[in-house]
Amino acid sequence: MSNALPEDSVGIVTCKTISFDEPLRLACGRVLKQYELMIETYGTLNAAKDNAILICHALSGDHHAAGKYHPDDKKPGWWDHYIGPGKPMDTNKFFIVSINNLGGCHGSTGPASINPENNEPWGADFPNLRVRDWVNTQVRVSDYLEIEQWAAVVGGSLGGMQAMRWSLEYPERLRHCIVIASAMKLTAQNIAFNETARRAIIADPKFCDGNYLAHQTIPKDGLSVARMIGHITYLSGGGMGEKFGRDLRSGSFKQGIEEPVEFQIESYLRYKGESFSKTFDANTYILMTRALDYFDLAREYDHDPARAFSHALCKFLVISFTSDWRFAPERSQEIVNAMIKADQDVVYAEIESDYGHDAFLVPNQTRYIDLFSAYMNKIEVRS
Amino acid sequence: MSNALPEDSVGIVTCKTISFDEPLRLACGRVLKQYELMIETYGTLNAAKDNAILICHALSGDHHAAGKYHPDDKKPGWWDHYIGPGKPMDTNKFFIVSINNLGGCHGSTGPASINPENNEPWGADFPNLRVRDWVNTQVRVSDYLEIEQWAAVVGGSLGGMQAMRWSLEYPERLRHCIVIASAMKLTAQNIAFNETARRAIIADPKFCDGNYLAHQTIPKDGLSVARMIGHITYLSGGGMGEKFGRDLRSGSFKQGIEEPVEFQIESYLRYKGESFSKTFDANTYILMTRALDYFDLAREYDHDPARAFSHALCKFLVISFTSDWRFAPERSQEIVNAMIKADQDVVYAEIESDYGHDAFLVPNQTRYIDLFSAYMNKIEVRS
Repeated sequence: MSNALPEDSVGIVTCKTISFDEPLRLACGRVLKQYELMIETYGTLNAAKDNAILICHALSGDHHAAGKYHPDDKKPGWWDHYIGPGKPMDTNKFFIVSINNLGGCHGSTGPASINPENNEPWGADFPNLRVRDWVNTQVRVSDYLEIEQWAAVVGGSLGGMQAMRWSLEYPERLRHCIVIASAMKLTAQNIAFNETARRAIIADPKFCDGNYLAHQTIPKDGLSVARMIGHITYLSGGGMGEKFGRDLRSGSFKQGIEEPVEFQIESYLRYKGESFSKTFDANTYILMTRALDYFDLAREYDHDPARAFSHALCKFLVISFTSDWRFAPERSQEIVNAMIKADQDVVYAEIESDYGHDAFLVPNQTRYIDLFSAYMNKIEVRS
Repeated sequence: MSNALPEDSVGIVTCKTISFDEPLRLACGRVLKQYELMIETYGTLNAAKDNAILICHALSGDHHAAGKYHPDDKKPGWWDHYIGPGKPMDTNKFFIVSINNLGGCHGSTGPASINPENNEPWGADFPNLRVRDWVNTQVRVSDYLEIEQWAAVVGGSLGGMQAMRWSLEYPERLRHCIVIASAMKLTAQNIAFNETARRAIIADPKFCDGNYLAHQTIPKDGLSVARMIGHITYLSGGGMGEKFGRDLRSGSFKQGIEEPVEFQIESYLRYKGESFSKTFDANTYILMTRALDYFDLAREYDHDPARAFSHALCKFLVISFTSDWRFAPERSQEIVNAMIKADQDVVYAEIESDYGHDAFLVPNQTRYIDLFSAYMNKIEVRS
């Protein structure tokens, strides 16, 4: 480990690509003949192979959940505050696996990859994916790693949807399911925001009906607006107000002077949008938001969530955050109510927080950390 | 009145243009040498000229607040449910004046008008406007109509900001100020939504830095996305859920079938965005949202709202709606608190409604109508 990294960091990490040649039938009916998944692991798999944790990422996440690739990387992985020695997902105890989802744009096969059938980027022709497709590919990673049963499958937001799907579809392959800031299905308002974001991308002439890579261009402007829309929904109104208020970045309100006034929140959002648009694939963004929209945990269980959860064999931890208006505490309460009705073992906590939906990633939230740690500490592993 | 119109309609109406040649100094320091304002009136001005009501419109409103131009118009004016014989703004009693704001795109001088100095559309060169500029032009309309004192100045949302500004800047020229679903200033989240909407417009290559008319094009896609963003914030999450839920417009979730799934809310929003983009000017949209962002009622009063309202001489009615998350009831409570601190005469009502910010326009809300009517009925007029 580099000296530049704090002691509770997982340190310098590397990722690796796994190639799968066994055809994968997708929920949409299409078949991927081969695909690659990029994974990253932290900690050590024990002899009993019962200390493995699977991290499922959210819309804009990837396999790089903790540590750095180089000591001088500006930022560590996206969930670094919660993965490492002594942290809630303690690498002294657990072997942690993080996968860039199929359809992603950080190493796993996705719309920006080359379609081997025609040697062109997949682009718009990449198949639609559902949450269950991700779970199925994650099962193959489990098999590849010879992990018969996960100590826990953990995810926030869209990641929580994957964790819940695991508990229903592969009940014997996990002992704990940890669902943070998630929902059993999106509301009309959630879908409305996603559709508006997609529309911003699609309306960008550089989108070229999704085949922008073949046209050697990128719909940066559209993706940037899409991310701005998303970003507003990740923060709470109150948190945004405390952080930015009506502070100006430039200009003034002096009368008689025409100069452009810019609020801090404006330049912040634009910066966030622009930087995202340089590193993320627009088709992946569309694909991920569609998977979010389509997810409906109980659809195949007569729309009865309790019936759905009756298939689960694991224990559950469900966490929500008071100021999260994207997936409000009510959504988590619906999950918990269904679990209780299905006679499942569930611990639920609503964490007081002003960080909105992003709270699940934000450091230094004592109750969240304490609760998350306490739960993880009680998970039994053999050696 | 046409037989096609209901009895409580103001009937067939006409609008008219008023030309102003006295130069207008704007808050930004620039001067408009001449300009036109489009106005519409309902009811009859009494001999004492003390029964006039000024309607101030919101972001996407205009002078056409009630009635129809032709019996077969699909829709009446935007506030038709509240203006007419027997309605809260009763045309049997009041003479109602509605003006398309300066900078608008429905007949008043705005960015889409021809700049007489160069015979080109103003486009991006049209001056930035503040709420106070609108109030100043409305004062000129009052003078033109020889209305020394309005019985009431009334507005919802951005219109409420104009009404409040009237009460501070021209205290002797109104007896009542009616402020509906408004705020003394925008929150960081409000600004964030506006900036994202503007960014969608500006990123449209057809925007041409605001000079699209000179290029004989229109940034329809960008404006459409901007309107979609706005529209989400006008409705409540709950109301949207009740109206659309997760109902599909096309496609199905059947496994093994790849067909595009479309939710009702998606096509609804897209339709709303597209129709708006055909009738509204993009520069006006930017100008109006900027005026919203810049508005800060107490800025020139040491940021002390009570000090600001201490200048008012009128009586106030303030109304908010429980599910309005754009200008939440808390924003109205701040207004009312400041008025009380300034020892003003204020009636406040928080109306239970599931229609979000749009509630101020939506018909058949009994308590809103009853309260609004009761207040208006008590306004004294001489003949």
